[in-house]
Amino acid sequence: MELPVYQDIINAHRLIRDYIHCTPVMTSSAINLITGSEIFFKCENLQKTGAFKFRGACNAVFSLTDELAARGVGTHSSGNHAAALALAARMRGIEAQIVMPSNAPDIKKKAVQGYGGIITYCEPTLQSRENTLMEIAERTGIVIVHPYNNCNVIAGQGTAAKELLEEVPFLNLVMCPVGGGGLLSGTALSVKAVTPSCRVIAAEPAGADDAWRSFKAGYIIPSDHPKTIADGLLTSLGEINYGVISQKVDDIITVSEESIINAMRLIWERMKLIIEPSSAVPLAALLENKDTFRDLRVGIILSGGNVDLGNLPFSR
Amino acid sequence: MELPVYQDIINAHRLIRDYIHCTPVMTSSAINLITGSEIFFKCENLQKTGAFKFRGACNAVFSLTDELAARGVGTHSSGNHAAALALAARMRGIEAQIVMPSNAPDIKKKAVQGYGGIITYCEPTLQSRENTLMEIAERTGIVIVHPYNNCNVIAGQGTAAKELLEEVPFLNLVMCPVGGGGLLSGTALSVKAVTPSCRVIAAEPAGADDAWRSFKAGYIIPSDHPKTIADGLLTSLGEINYGVISQKVDDIITVSEESIINAMRLIWERMKLIIEPSSAVPLAALLENKDTFRDLRVGIILSGGNVDLGNLPFSR
Repeated sequence: MELPVYQDIINAHRLIRDYIHCTPVMTSSAINLITGSEIFFKCENLQKTGAFKFRGACNAVFSLTDELAARGVGTHSSGNHAAALALAARMRGIEAQIVMPSNAPDIKKKAVQGYGGIITYCEPTLQSRENTLMEIAERTGIVIVHPYNNCNVIAGQGTAAKELLEEVPFLNLVMCPVGGGGLLSGTALSVKAVTPSCRVIAAEPAGADDAWRSFKAGYIIPSDHPKTIADGLLTSLGEINYGVISQKVDDIITVSEESIINAMRLIWERMKLIIEPSSAVPLAALLENKDTFRDLRVGIILSGGNVDLGNLPFSR
Repeated sequence: MELPVYQDIINAHRLIRDYIHCTPVMTSSAINLITGSEIFFKCENLQKTGAFKFRGACNAVFSLTDELAARGVGTHSSGNHAAALALAARMRGIEAQIVMPSNAPDIKKKAVQGYGGIITYCEPTLQSRENTLMEIAERTGIVIVHPYNNCNVIAGQGTAAKELLEEVPFLNLVMCPVGGGGLLSGTALSVKAVTPSCRVIAAEPAGADDAWRSFKAGYIIPSDHPKTIADGLLTSLGEINYGVISQKVDDIITVSEESIINAMRLIWERMKLIIEPSSAVPLAALLENKDTFRDLRVGIILSGGNVDLGNLPFSR
């Protein structure tokens, strides 16, 4: 299995630079005071489609030859990758076929439609999602873009950390959440190439700790009935992702649901930024381990900001 | 009555530049598509203390002679001005006496305490607030800083529009909300000095339309039982504010509560920015009057981002 390298991220950045936002890096003295560290938040919640996923989808779509691109692209997803792929395809002027479970939230369906994606609904099982997508692919010849187990996607996601390191030098640690491992593998490739002495630590909900278990075991242990408010982190590690992570990542830390909600609320209240629960997981890890990370300069990738405003975890 | 002039804003900016954030200007192609105009949002929700109020408080505090400053400052407020004055005073190393009604929300009390303000509680009536503050002032000699009817405060607030115009040239229109008129009078002074051809239009909730009525009548008509979700806009126009507004502002537009909530939700969902309802009032005016403002380049000052996350106006 061939793993992506940092040069792939450099190439990706050159290819997608005109299509993505170079998102801002923000700081909060109030949050620094609470954690005892100095945090630089890379705001991918302000990325197009509201998540870092647009970087990877964009690189996958624009890496295609004209001939392949003409066939269109497709994926099965009910989350941020679906919207990202739809917009990237529209920017290239090609079709995006998105398979979604019929019970996906309205807000997700509307986002994909708003970006011009062609939705096919299926039963809410992984089997039905895969079968439906395969059937479309066989009929139409579309190129299937996996949400994370794909070298071009990983290279695209790695451009977020590349931008962060170019803007903020001398980081001691870079943190991001881990679900399927697309963001984490891209981030680790960038960090270890640009600043080898900088540590890379992922944060994961304890209720969906397959990446932590896989990292400790030395082989992929699939996700088994994961349960967490961080709905972007329910998936199991991909093979390519695991290959990079096992080589380049220093550690994975698990956090409680309570810490995730506390961290999310801190960023909403103190930074006035809307982030989704998955984005709050790294700050939750800092809050649970203040002494370990005291006085460090920490980069955190805020992965996305797509939340259902009618269903928030905050109470009075 | 002497009115502030643009030179006061230049001086204020020089004085407070090192203490305030030069807040970012953000855009949203999705919102531009909806309104048909090109909007540049000046993000004062990302200002220190979460609101533009910090600019005015900062200018008022740092304009004091050392002798006056040593006596401390004070105000009665349950809102953003209280937190702003407390932090500005702490930065100058002086005391801030804040009179708050005993029924003020916990989150406001904590904010003022967090910035080192000394709180005295009073009955929740304007009479009690003024009496309590007067009594403290007579006993301690503090300098009272009015939240808006004060030339230094107005000059400070005007620095937000100054920064906006310096970053984004060729605006056709600048909009902000109007409550007491501190932000509006400062904004109008900056805009008409820097770009005289640019219009200045304020937006106000129909349920708290004293500024609109005063503007049309030609004299101050005090607020009478105002009722709106935009809790920063309940106050009546100050005399100095009215003096500037009647000379420099082109128009005031009133908007419905429904439009305010729609506009707030748009900014939360599309820009991933937390704004308080008052901040959404100008966008609400654009949404209610799309044809009037079509194709214009519009600057909007997002006034603040302090909301109670346990009590939001969004439903499924």
